[in-house]
Amino acid sequence: MSRSGMRTIFYDSPVSVRAHASIAGKKEGQGPLASSFDVVIEDDLLGQKSWEFAESEMLRRAVELAAQRAELPTEAIGALLAGDLNAQIISAGFAARALGIPFLGLYGACSTMAEALLVGAEMVSNGNLQNAVCAASSHFCTAERQFRFPLELGTQRPPSAQWTATAAGALLIEGGDRGDVRVTCGTLGRVIDLKVKDANHMGAAMAPAVCDTIVGHFEDTGRDFAYYDRIATGDLGRIGREILMELLQKRGVDVNENRLMDCGASIYGPEQDVHAGGSGCGCIASVLSGYLIKRMESGALAKVLAVGSGAMLSLLSSQQGESIPSVAYAVALERA
Amino acid sequence: MSRSGMRTIFYDSPVSVRAHASIAGKKEGQGPLASSFDVVIEDDLLGQKSWEFAESEMLRRAVELAAQRAELPTEAIGALLAGDLNAQIISAGFAARALGIPFLGLYGACSTMAEALLVGAEMVSNGNLQNAVCAASSHFCTAERQFRFPLELGTQRPPSAQWTATAAGALLIEGGDRGDVRVTCGTLGRVIDLKVKDANHMGAAMAPAVCDTIVGHFEDTGRDFAYYDRIATGDLGRIGREILMELLQKRGVDVNENRLMDCGASIYGPEQDVHAGGSGCGCIASVLSGYLIKRMESGALAKVLAVGSGAMLSLLSSQQGESIPSVAYAVALERA
Repeated sequence: MSRSGMRTIFYDSPVSVRAHASIAGKKEGQGPLASSFDVVIEDDLLGQKSWEFAESEMLRRAVELAAQRAELPTEAIGALLAGDLNAQIISAGFAARALGIPFLGLYGACSTMAEALLVGAEMVSNGNLQNAVCAASSHFCTAERQFRFPLELGTQRPPSAQWTATAAGALLIEGGDRGDVRVTCGTLGRVIDLKVKDANHMGAAMAPAVCDTIVGHFEDTGRDFAYYDRIATGDLGRIGREILMELLQKRGVDVNENRLMDCGASIYGPEQDVHAGGSGCGCIASVLSGYLIKRMESGALAKVLAVGSGAMLSLLSSQQGESIPSVAYAVALERA
Repeated sequence: MSRSGMRTIFYDSPVSVRAHASIAGKKEGQGPLASSFDVVIEDDLLGQKSWEFAESEMLRRAVELAAQRAELPTEAIGALLAGDLNAQIISAGFAARALGIPFLGLYGACSTMAEALLVGAEMVSNGNLQNAVCAASSHFCTAERQFRFPLELGTQRPPSAQWTATAAGALLIEGGDRGDVRVTCGTLGRVIDLKVKDANHMGAAMAPAVCDTIVGHFEDTGRDFAYYDRIATGDLGRIGREILMELLQKRGVDVNENRLMDCGASIYGPEQDVHAGGSGCGCIASVLSGYLIKRMESGALAKVLAVGSGAMLSLLSSQQGESIPSVAYAVALERA
């Protein structure tokens, strides 16, 4: 329903999460959320000829697993809304080629999973699609050479750097009330830039966009921290999470730290030497499609606000001396 | 309304084109469609420090011009759905930063304008947004170094090569019946790959996806070539257009050549030395938001099917020896 001047979309016809799948790499499979992933891959290349194609294959498998669990052939899926961090989203594009599902390619950097869910739920709620798969992926080895340096250089990472998760997640949503978990509303994000220029300090660059979207969501819905069992950001990392709490408090938000979880800060343990935590489209995608949705299905969590945030930089914009604009989307998932 | 198993979305509540803006570069401003562009820029850099930022500035100006013509401040615009060809769609991302409009980043290569219109019309039709701007841009100088070779090399282009248009287009759509032109339905595309590997032969790579989407649109709607005054593809170029006609005929479609227009084949004259024609997100975006919409408003055209097609390759996927997967979206515009 339309509420003038607001950024929040309410899905008036029920949209259910029918099935989910999460796949993670070896390092992610050794972290605190290991048991929540459906598949942990041992070989970073998955038998492919390049990391980009390994990432694409991981995304393809996540979508296929979600479809299998819903007992749907891929031909019965109305649309695949997906993206990744690679230039021209080749991992998603090549996965869509293999799957044959009508495809909407999105680019929201690490916010892509939330963006896909926001748009996909809209199309399903409207009745224009019976169902859709929302998915995203990332791979440590593709992202490093895409945004920073070739891995072969062995460049030292500063403490504020985040580790791009090798992971993929997929949620199969459908119209109707067959699932325990519903996608109830979503808040659009604005591109915000507080002039952080360090591609190894993404949490600081993205925190202002996350703050803006959470505040916008609260204003539009009248909700607050007490409404949600978890507000799950992805991915600010440990440093960005601290900055976010400070920014929210400055905006007058009563922050409940115990309910604020960052997927990037949660996916790796402190002993895993990833510095500030995880990042990448696949991080929140796999944590949302694994840990969080399973905790919701078990009843441990009833209301979750997933806030995906993306840093809209490129290697070229960094080389041209530009700062890092960021965007964040919030999607509410609630038990029926 | 949902029709099971179909790829076509029908916008049951009216979606009107409220305003439009098209901007083109110097070369495009010397072509056959010169008089249809609202602005022709003389300086490829638009006073910016890089071509990428010039492209971003061009996109920003197109969006702002469309908003001005609708007499709306940018704060009154519900969402900007946009993308471009650059890695991590930086031209769109940086334009969204400057505009402050809630942003949905899309990547469909040269199909982006059609993808944006398809998704934007859905959100507006549903009443979740009062209005939205759908926009896309491309720049010859950014695309060459993004997909092929640095311009400084002076690489010779083969006859099948297309020239990426320096152009941007924006359509401001809104719910209700205030405009003469309505967005009535849209057909989703599948990623199709017939194993063309030559990044200088995009028309051949994309023609199969365009054929698949047009055939799907006809099947879903019961329409044919006779229904539309123009089926405007973008961008197959002259060679790809020939291939498309052959593919359509093989699928049993009665092709009316006079009603089939390719934006890339139309934007440059034969004397402009662009070989197979134009391409780039900005080509169909500027021709649709300029020439075509103006011909519709004047009553010269009543029904137009805009079919944007994108080649989902990257420099990396080309270097890794991969073929070029493609996707196409069709959007119907009809006079009220």
